[in-house]
Amino acid sequence: MKLLEKTCQKIFPQDAESRQRATERLNQLALPHWALGDLMNLAVDLAGMTRSIQPLYQKKAVVTMAGDHGVTVEGVSKFPSEVTPQMVYNFVNGGAGINALARQAGADVFVVDMGVNADFSDLVKAGKIIDKKVGHGTNNIAKGPAMSIARARQAVEAGIEVAAELCREYDLLGTGDMGIGNTTPSTAIAAVITGKPVELLTGRGTGLDDSQLAAKIATITRILEINKPDKKNGLDILAKVGGFEIGGIAGLIIGSAAQRVPVVVDGFISTAGALIASTIEPFVKDYLIFAHRSVEPGHKFMQEALGCTKPLLDLNMRLGEGTGGAVAMNIVDAATAVLKDIATFDEAAVAGADK
Amino acid sequence: MKLLEKTCQKIFPQDAESRQRATERLNQLALPHWALGDLMNLAVDLAGMTRSIQPLYQKKAVVTMAGDHGVTVEGVSKFPSEVTPQMVYNFVNGGAGINALARQAGADVFVVDMGVNADFSDLVKAGKIIDKKVGHGTNNIAKGPAMSIARARQAVEAGIEVAAELCREYDLLGTGDMGIGNTTPSTAIAAVITGKPVELLTGRGTGLDDSQLAAKIATITRILEINKPDKKNGLDILAKVGGFEIGGIAGLIIGSAAQRVPVVVDGFISTAGALIASTIEPFVKDYLIFAHRSVEPGHKFMQEALGCTKPLLDLNMRLGEGTGGAVAMNIVDAATAVLKDIATFDEAAVAGADK
Repeated sequence: MKLLEKTCQKIFPQDAESRQRATERLNQLALPHWALGDLMNLAVDLAGMTRSIQPLYQKKAVVTMAGDHGVTVEGVSKFPSEVTPQMVYNFVNGGAGINALARQAGADVFVVDMGVNADFSDLVKAGKIIDKKVGHGTNNIAKGPAMSIARARQAVEAGIEVAAELCREYDLLGTGDMGIGNTTPSTAIAAVITGKPVELLTGRGTGLDDSQLAAKIATITRILEINKPDKKNGLDILAKVGGFEIGGIAGLIIGSAAQRVPVVVDGFISTAGALIASTIEPFVKDYLIFAHRSVEPGHKFMQEALGCTKPLLDLNMRLGEGTGGAVAMNIVDAATAVLKDIATFDEAAVAGADK
Repeated sequence: MKLLEKTCQKIFPQDAESRQRATERLNQLALPHWALGDLMNLAVDLAGMTRSIQPLYQKKAVVTMAGDHGVTVEGVSKFPSEVTPQMVYNFVNGGAGINALARQAGADVFVVDMGVNADFSDLVKAGKIIDKKVGHGTNNIAKGPAMSIARARQAVEAGIEVAAELCREYDLLGTGDMGIGNTTPSTAIAAVITGKPVELLTGRGTGLDDSQLAAKIATITRILEINKPDKKNGLDILAKVGGFEIGGIAGLIIGSAAQRVPVVVDGFISTAGALIASTIEPFVKDYLIFAHRSVEPGHKFMQEALGCTKPLLDLNMRLGEGTGGAVAMNIVDAATAVLKDIATFDEAAVAGADK
């Protein structure tokens, strides 16, 4: 059996008994019933994911997957493709948004080359990035498939390997992405899996104007017509309209879920990766924590398709890199504190509510 | 001139030049324009409040003000009044929600006795709480005013004194409250200042059922008819339908604003304090950071009256104590990291967007 199938076999739903124990503890805390709202719901989820009511997790990492996209020649992005490798160097040098926000949240950052169109042998040799390069950028999906099925599998299995490696040391992971042009494949994935119209899902990405937005909608519509992805087949969707870093994110999610490690899912691109992962193995949904609601209009529908009606944050962010996930890790820490560090009515000698 | 008036004279709008400098820096960061959304808006506010673009602030504290309410005899709360002093002991022992969440956020907690109906001389002697007791609980506002105008002033000036003391060491403060029954005076304050109908503003507090909620609405309506507060006079509103801890919160806000120290405003009760403060001195609004949207239905209208359409968090919290503020301090830290720690396009040698 291949790595992907073997890993999916190890993914089980959240543990009901741990959820129950967490709920019982939270019901006894010296405060009005469930008065910490979503933090308490999240604490129950964390218990169910990790099969424990403490300590839940100890060490956090954000994994930023980078890849290039042939479709950029269609003019779908405001930024040139060379920004992808430039940003990889910026990550390595610690100057990017994800570095600042992960540091604030107490998380380490790992950068993975999933398929950037650049030579990073210097960075790989220096141990600064993880090398899982599947190719030098995808093919132009406005003309045909992004990659072969074999490469789609390779990308997902690379993500699984990264999860396996990191989960030796880290027990809370966040997803992140870098890839100029990658809102286009992500929107195409969203259209296939959610079934919503392209017009409803497509946004301005890094800052398109009205006519550029109309052109992007036309391009994505053409991408779907030409490629005809099979909505029940995650690898087929990834191969036809996806991207290397999106496959890596899907694999990271599958690999983490197999080890019962919660995954904080960042924004639009990461959620496209989660859609691919959940199409391959629906149980992964039980290990996802949705960080925030992106400005990209399709994000809401993608999150709903994954069972999330309200992510933790809604801060008008649209950067990617894992930044929303890093900020949301603070909230995950807060949920953990609620379960671990608040006294019960009995422990605190506080009178309860009138029945 | 008295302390309150003297302090209000020291409150100025945010510094326009620092806002401008922060905006210029944020516009140059190596990311799509303003792609970190609300974090960037908050960073500009912090610069305007502190007159600096770094380091903005260093040390955080949550100040939890406690007081009792004569109106509890009307059956407006699910919990008995003795829970107020019991929770004060819980705060001091570090077992309450605010202790857990402030610890997670890296903030210290200060508990202030503004008017609890209990003898805390042991805690005061041991230096465990700050003693600003104005009285042993307010009068029943369903029968007449909560307190005299002199005591209302005393409560607000006590809050100013606490701010003056804490701002020697701390440069980011959060408000918090503890007081069984205090959603009732807070709703009354909201009705006076926002002008919205009581039915729209009144919620279930710690967990009232439908008939108890109807009775609470009737009680608050009676409170307003009997007391007739002057909506232009913050001290009059506080004296007639307020509470000692609400006055303390108003004073803390006024005192912090006078020292250009940003204040993270917690939930429903804290926002009632902010409404009193802004009625006394409208410029305080420039120093408020709204932490979250409480489950209490009136909160939205109160925040809107203070110029906030969207607080940082919306996590279905309704505990008070300062808990929402503590969680939101993580987001304030993230906003600071955005301004301080991200490289510009030039610094990172990254290509900009096509014009």
